[in-house]
Amino acid sequence: MSVCELCNNPGGELIWQDGFCRVVRLDDVDYPGFCRVILNRHVKEMSDLEVHDRERLMAVVFAVEQAVREIMQPDKINLASLGNVTPHLHWHVIPRYKLDRHFPNPIWGSSTRESLANPLDKNTAQQLKTEIQRMLG
Amino acid sequence: MSVCELCNNPGGELIWQDGFCRVVRLDDVDYPGFCRVILNRHVKEMSDLEVHDRERLMAVVFAVEQAVREIMQPDKINLASLGNVTPHLHWHVIPRYKLDRHFPNPIWGSSTRESLANPLDKNTAQQLKTEIQRMLG
Repeated sequence: MSVCELCNNPGGELIWQDGFCRVVRLDDVDYPGFCRVILNRHVKEMSDLEVHDRERLMAVVFAVEQAVREIMQPDKINLASLGNVTPHLHWHVIPRYKLDRHFPNPIWGSSTRESLANPLDKNTAQQLKTEIQRMLG
Repeated sequence: MSVCELCNNPGGELIWQDGFCRVVRLDDVDYPGFCRVILNRHVKEMSDLEVHDRERLMAVVFAVEQAVREIMQPDKINLASLGNVTPHLHWHVIPRYKLDRHFPNPIWGSSTRESLANPLDKNTAQQLKTEIQRMLG
């Protein structure tokens, strides 16, 4: 059995999926609305994908970005595909706010203020889910 | 005059450009081969671009990724579009190595070892430039 975290777990609360990839939402009290787009197959780098699959994955990332902007109204979106620990293609879609814990640093950088411990309320979580599903309809 | 850093400066050593975007290489002694793909226009988010422009910009990002993999032979590629400080679309294409300063953390995270202070040698810099230019025709 593969030891890959993302081959064996959804990687968050499942919001949408097809045969190619899935969208999950993380429960991060510092980053409410933080979503990930995860390729279903175990592939390491974007350039390991065929061109049309790169475009297909990014189209999902940008649809999620659009839904997150619509519902969460962040000051900025951060996108990243890192995978140093889990080399299985996944994109972070992170709504950032001027008063969030690390702004203007990346969320992996030094914190600039105390945690607001601000989990996403159920109603907004449902709105976000509905909007992502609508975008990917 | 705009105060945007990336409207007023190339943002690194210019390697390639067209009317839409440019590729620059950073002089980062911890991250030799670190490149950026910068949209020429001042646009904040990927989802502010038309779909064909998103695809056009990502095609350049992935071409640079491929060239960086070819020449730098990294253990992993990290891609990110953050822009919290400079909200002008730019993509980081970062070759990562298991023994680099922050691995497996993001380069913005805690360092895990001493700096190797390993600037890119002139020959490899030229190879990388040539390969990126070749990829982008």
